Amino acid sequence: MSINIKKEEIDLAYGVVKQFCHNTPVLSSLSINIIAGCELFFKCENFQKIGAFKMRGAAYALSKLTANEKQNGVITHSSGNHAQAVALAAKLQGIKAEIVMPRTAPRVKVKGVESYGGKITFCEPTISARQETVDQIKSRTKATFIPPYDHKDIITGQATCAKELLEEKPEIEVLICPVGGGGLLSGTILASDFYGNKTKVYAGEPEEVDDAYRSIKSGKIEKNKTTNTIADGLKTDLGELNFSIIKDGVEKILLVNEAEIKSVMRLIWERMKIIIEPSCAVPLAAILRNKELFKNKKVGVILTGGNVDLDKFFKTI
Amino acid sequence: MSINIKKEEIDLAYGVVKQFCHNTPVLSSLSINIIAGCELFFKCENFQKIGAFKMRGAAYALSKLTANEKQNGVITHSSGNHAQAVALAAKLQGIKAEIVMPRTAPRVKVKGVESYGGKITFCEPTISARQETVDQIKSRTKATFIPPYDHKDIITGQATCAKELLEEKPEIEVLICPVGGGGLLSGTILASDFYGNKTKVYAGEPEEVDDAYRSIKSGKIEKNKTTNTIADGLKTDLGELNFSIIKDGVEKILLVNEAEIKSVMRLIWERMKIIIEPSCAVPLAAILRNKELFKNKKVGVILTGGNVDLDKFFKTI
Repeated sequence: MSINIKKEEIDLAYGVVKQFCHNTPVLSSLSINIIAGCELFFKCENFQKIGAFKMRGAAYALSKLTANEKQNGVITHSSGNHAQAVALAAKLQGIKAEIVMPRTAPRVKVKGVESYGGKITFCEPTISARQETVDQIKSRTKATFIPPYDHKDIITGQATCAKELLEEKPEIEVLICPVGGGGLLSGTILASDFYGNKTKVYAGEPEEVDDAYRSIKSGKIEKNKTTNTIADGLKTDLGELNFSIIKDGVEKILLVNEAEIKSVMRLIWERMKIIIEPSCAVPLAAILRNKELFKNKKVGVILTGGNVDLDKFFKTI
Repeated sequence: MSINIKKEEIDLAYGVVKQFCHNTPVLSSLSINIIAGCELFFKCENFQKIGAFKMRGAAYALSKLTANEKQNGVITHSSGNHAQAVALAAKLQGIKAEIVMPRTAPRVKVKGVESYGGKITFCEPTISARQETVDQIKSRTKATFIPPYDHKDIITGQATCAKELLEEKPEIEVLICPVGGGGLLSGTILASDFYGNKTKVYAGEPEEVDDAYRSIKSGKIEKNKTTNTIADGLKTDLGELNFSIIKDGVEKILLVNEAEIKSVMRLIWERMKIIIEPSCAVPLAAILRNKELFKNKKVGVILTGGNVDLDKFFKTI
């Protein structure tokens, strides 16, 4: 399976995304540049609406539904940011949203979905339980399923993030983002082709969920063997449409371990004074493990989101 | 004692400050606006160099030294942000800096001073021990003492923060910042006079260090009775020059308790995805306790800094 997404479609998506999403700021840190040995431009999607880049894809995908589909509402399953994105994008576009969430989803993300008016149904934390619960609700409501990443409109929407970054900082030579299902990475590859200047795209991935790394090696989609990572946004398996773009477009997938993710998350909190999710720490951790690849380069890093469960990371004060 | 600081001097200071400091971003949060019942513009001095507004006053004060004074170096005592500010401003202007710090100073601030090349001497955590240690070093080095707030050039430098905010968001009707020694508050009052549009200035102060609140009531400088607050930047007593500006210029000083400070610090971390010091939470806590004063207004809030000791607030992850 493969797809063809043209520059014009990303431009069109951007027209929609601009109405419902922030053009997030790009921050720098002199002290982190010194540590990394390169010049870093952090695209702060942790300041995006719902606190993550997922808002872009959801806003665009929902805008493309027919009037009839909009009337029947939308449904998705997600442990987190995609759930919030669909809930808020639906609310802003006057569409009903049903959200299936595993009962283990971070509390802050559950609260987010509730606050955006999404109707939550909890299920067991397995892919099959999620799918069954979605199917049950769909058969009743005729709602349109909005997948989290393996979908043309979602990929097109996520591409607007790197588009904004490259247009604001055209000097960027290399882009890096994390890879989970591959929605952001495939969109970033497309954007670098259309809006970059021979910009290479790298991805960071936790060793514990290294399906994308192994998929590139074997040339076919591999599954995760464990999901034992603190980077809760990256536990999903690679999508098919996403892989069709990633397999030729990514320069390299760079693995990092859990200790590196934790240490870099703390580094960013401390030096940049911003709160990021563990998944966001993966690209900078990958840069610090592979300094020679990025030496003296101008590097765009997508910080994907900031929805951490404060109870998990912060002491009660 | 009173001082006369003209608009031209703040403009002049801004010419210096611009060379050594960031024009920090102004962020908003729809969800916090809804909670507060007004429209808030957060001036993010937590993203300032050294992570706090203190960089402004230090940069300007050092720039005004004579060539001879610059050669003899500078000295200050501070538990934190002022220490870092003097160390970095000195480094950037080619001046030697000696910093006296109480041995209880937050580790992140000690590390900051070290990284900026300041020479640290530790002392007991009392005002008299700080002063004695400074005097000993001064008698040896002839260094110029740079006070943290009770100084004309420091006040003028701090005024550039509200100047930037009011010039970027001229619609602001009310400004609020925390008050400790009064450097930022007195500068903010001057800036609101010169660059605002009848902009009222409020201050937030912890109940546990309510010297400014009581000073306004009695008409003379009162001392703190305790320093038992989590807002470590606000433990100092009000300065004389500062009080001379504050006593007529502040609309009202609003007290908040420790529980309110902690709860608002968490609210800002969670909703805005930015890390702020406890002192920064004081103004928003004051707004939430006095909603009727700010109802439907456009309110500028100065977030003073982001140098928290991560070990204190964050779980080991």
